[in-house]
Amino acid sequence: MEVITTRHALREYAARHSQKIGFVPTMGYLHEGHLSLVERAKAQNEKVVVSIFVNPTQFNDPKDFEKYPVDEAHDKELLERAGVDLLFMPSRGNIFSEGNPTIRIQYPHLMDKLCGEKRAGHFEGVLLIVHNLFMWLNPARAYFGLKDYQQYLLVQKMARDLEFTTEIVGCPLLREKDGLAMSSRNVRLSSAGRQQAVGISQALFSSRSVFQETQSVRAAADALRQELAQFEVEYATLSNAETLETLEEGTPLPKKILIAVAVFVDGVRLIDNVLVVPHAISI
Amino acid sequence: MEVITTRHALREYAARHSQKIGFVPTMGYLHEGHLSLVERAKAQNEKVVVSIFVNPTQFNDPKDFEKYPVDEAHDKELLERAGVDLLFMPSRGNIFSEGNPTIRIQYPHLMDKLCGEKRAGHFEGVLLIVHNLFMWLNPARAYFGLKDYQQYLLVQKMARDLEFTTEIVGCPLLREKDGLAMSSRNVRLSSAGRQQAVGISQALFSSRSVFQETQSVRAAADALRQELAQFEVEYATLSNAETLETLEEGTPLPKKILIAVAVFVDGVRLIDNVLVVPHAISI
Repeated sequence: MEVITTRHALREYAARHSQKIGFVPTMGYLHEGHLSLVERAKAQNEKVVVSIFVNPTQFNDPKDFEKYPVDEAHDKELLERAGVDLLFMPSRGNIFSEGNPTIRIQYPHLMDKLCGEKRAGHFEGVLLIVHNLFMWLNPARAYFGLKDYQQYLLVQKMARDLEFTTEIVGCPLLREKDGLAMSSRNVRLSSAGRQQAVGISQALFSSRSVFQETQSVRAAADALRQELAQFEVEYATLSNAETLETLEEGTPLPKKILIAVAVFVDGVRLIDNVLVVPHAISI
Repeated sequence: MEVITTRHALREYAARHSQKIGFVPTMGYLHEGHLSLVERAKAQNEKVVVSIFVNPTQFNDPKDFEKYPVDEAHDKELLERAGVDLLFMPSRGNIFSEGNPTIRIQYPHLMDKLCGEKRAGHFEGVLLIVHNLFMWLNPARAYFGLKDYQQYLLVQKMARDLEFTTEIVGCPLLREKDGLAMSSRNVRLSSAGRQQAVGISQALFSSRSVFQETQSVRAAADALRQELAQFEVEYATLSNAETLETLEEGTPLPKKILIAVAVFVDGVRLIDNVLVVPHAISI
């Protein structure tokens, strides 16, 4: 596995392997979820490039940025074993050579919902770094986990609206055996917190079951909130999976529903979601 | 001169002439100002591509959009004569195939000033279309007139911050013999309006002279406003040419000052500007 650290070298690599690259952008501290993206990229492309960059512009809370776990040696070992061709691991100074840019790439009515509502600037930071990684690498395909569903949706729209030729591939989120969504942040949980966190996916699964049985948004939302009563909840909603508008009982159901939550356990912010397709409306 | 109308064909042309293209994006109804950009592009590049597209997303007033002058036959003749290699003249439906996108590319603290203050969404529209034209064509250089100084500044910053390899070349604005800045909109002026419009550049030149003599922002601003008393003025200010902040008397002078105005004559919005460099401060 080749390792490079400058955007200049990344452009050169892209020029040599034009239209053959599958790209997996990450913030490091890799787990099986990331490796499933790498596996998918390997199956679909001649070359697989992974980036590791903890992007300061997408953290609204500097403390959260500082606490983000890092283990470069272990990450390299995992990627080497997974057969990755190139690891791009830039320094912050190489990415933002003139300080954080003041440009903003925005979807005003998608970024103010769910994870965006309480994290001003988060998704602008995500889209800016993804935009520029795509400019340097120009991958044929890029892989994003559906655990960060809103991120996947925004990146997919940006790639289309800003005329990238990159295909955005959304990959299923992976869960631990007890259902907890895999996350680099799980390592920060205490033993008790880790136990409690199982309740997050259980609440999502219950809400989904209730919806599947009743086709009632209100019943599913009630079930979700009841099961999450033990948590400090940032949001817990049923939304239109395309517009991210919160669903209300009695209005027409969308093609796909996103049931999504963000909660705090031991002060660690954890997110999870499931997608559910309403019954077809009979004609 | 080849003429194409689809973004797909534009990408193909770009692939054949990679890194050899000088690009002049326009909204058509061409005058000598545009042709001076073409001339510069011809001198610096192997191929010159001009686009004509009256971009609806940058007009905040639909009436202004409808009234924007169009003369395709004359434009083609001028460009043919100027030795342009390719004219890109897309339909609106080819550019925004899924309706106007909701993505916004913004510089919040640059877009709310001068031409941006009263024209919500104008520069977002400009940056979006320029971004995508660059994505399709990937020119080595792109040429913008300094008459739209704020547009030039924003495009230049965007090209840098979003990692385009395109060099943005700012070209001097051209004036009629009596000093009126050349503009596609001048054709909409009545004979009396055309006479009156001479006062715009005169006011700018006076203000510049006053500043050069006094190095006083207040004196130059007063001169500007006095000379523009006969006009309906949208803005008339001395600004920091890099940040676009309005200058105030007594604060340190920037490296370069933009004296810029927007006025209405016969209901036609006309803009003009001059740049002036303050005397070096002795050490």
